[in-house]
Amino acid sequence: MIRVVILGAGNVAKHLYSAFFHQKHIEIIQCYNRKNLQLHPDQKKETIIKDIRLLKDADIYVLAVSDDAIEKVSSIFPFKNKLVVHTSGSSPMGIINNKNKKGVFYPLQTFSKDKIVNFTTIPICIEAENQIDLEILRKLASSLSNKVYTISSEQRSILHVSAVFVNNFTNYLFSIGSDICNEHRVPFEILHPLIQETAQKAIKMDPSNAQTGPAIRKDVNTIERHLEILTNTTQQNIYTTLTKAIQSKYGKEL
Amino acid sequence: MIRVVILGAGNVAKHLYSAFFHQKHIEIIQCYNRKNLQLHPDQKKETIIKDIRLLKDADIYVLAVSDDAIEKVSSIFPFKNKLVVHTSGSSPMGIINNKNKKGVFYPLQTFSKDKIVNFTTIPICIEAENQIDLEILRKLASSLSNKVYTISSEQRSILHVSAVFVNNFTNYLFSIGSDICNEHRVPFEILHPLIQETAQKAIKMDPSNAQTGPAIRKDVNTIERHLEILTNTTQQNIYTTLTKAIQSKYGKEL
Repeated sequence: MIRVVILGAGNVAKHLYSAFFHQKHIEIIQCYNRKNLQLHPDQKKETIIKDIRLLKDADIYVLAVSDDAIEKVSSIFPFKNKLVVHTSGSSPMGIINNKNKKGVFYPLQTFSKDKIVNFTTIPICIEAENQIDLEILRKLASSLSNKVYTISSEQRSILHVSAVFVNNFTNYLFSIGSDICNEHRVPFEILHPLIQETAQKAIKMDPSNAQTGPAIRKDVNTIERHLEILTNTTQQNIYTTLTKAIQSKYGKEL
Repeated sequence: MIRVVILGAGNVAKHLYSAFFHQKHIEIIQCYNRKNLQLHPDQKKETIIKDIRLLKDADIYVLAVSDDAIEKVSSIFPFKNKLVVHTSGSSPMGIINNKNKKGVFYPLQTFSKDKIVNFTTIPICIEAENQIDLEILRKLASSLSNKVYTISSEQRSILHVSAVFVNNFTNYLFSIGSDICNEHRVPFEILHPLIQETAQKAIKMDPSNAQTGPAIRKDVNTIERHLEILTNTTQQNIYTTLTKAIQSKYGKEL
């Protein structure tokens, strides 16, 4: 049995609660958050605390708090030498306060408030200061997911910046596509299968080999027509920036 | 029975051949391309022509050629008043030569050479000069796909520029993510589930409501750390351009 305490009340905390809650070999001892919020409808009220001094003994303390709060919350822990892990993609393990043993338990996925998550296929990146703690984290991660990776803080920062490109920025491009369609009253749903196939392709083949479109074809006429259709300067600027980048990447090969 | 002639030998021509080939109510009369290429291993050689003057009578002539070639190929047709359609997202219907009846049969998907395509879920955008031709195109399109849309040339150009954002540019962002991981020897596959979920989310909810990440959070520390990790100026430039665009889009709401 792995005894866990979850700290925080955001999306990650809630999704981890649900995931841990359904595992036989994991016991959620307590949840801490400043507002005494329940993370799950089945959670017993006596297990929720807002005074960190009431923290009970556990095997792992999971800091599912915002990046800014990791350092502070870990510094007010009322004990030492316990395994304290954060769940952040961008924070190094080292920002956890020195009085406890440090680790990272980073599920690499985008969590929404109301969308149920299947943890089985979510990569979990773990890191610890020593082998024993790493094995505890591996046990915890493996009980949720089939994809557990031992990843250093440096590697995690690389994954995080890549994730900004493939998730945050990509979603923003989807929103531009949606805005253009809405502005001209064309149903955006017509593009849904293309969005799905674009993602599928990037998974099945190297995205560098999947590049298509007017930019890589150096189809100047189409590019000019597109820039005329776009009247929004931000959209024009992004179109030009990405078109130039694609042409410069593939320029030599054409 | 709808009798079809396919002109061209690229990916769209090949995928359309396979799709039509499996339909009972469609007969592929002939295929024209300048190199006498076979579009499908089961295609009979006598149905392939490279001399356009040998074109036989059919109900629909599908110009699955490059955008630049539509005008020229349609001008050398050896007959008039037949239904000639192109398959392009970015060309207006009007560029087809006046001597024949014009139409568009645009399957909105990214086609790869070797990837088998399930046409059932691919949106097909049709357009014609008159209702009778439109109904013939609807019959042809409906035999392949459940998603048939009547779309004007203007609407199609909107879809096409949106498709550049959600497919071409998105794929380029995936390739940046892949490049960053490869450069630092971190397996890009760790990001595959995130890519899949990003696309799923954009389909299930309005992408404008799905935006997350350091840009929308105005998390200056993370943005600065990311820009330090990126040593490639193109990547830095794209990161900054998209971050600013996201912040300006959501600025007022924060």
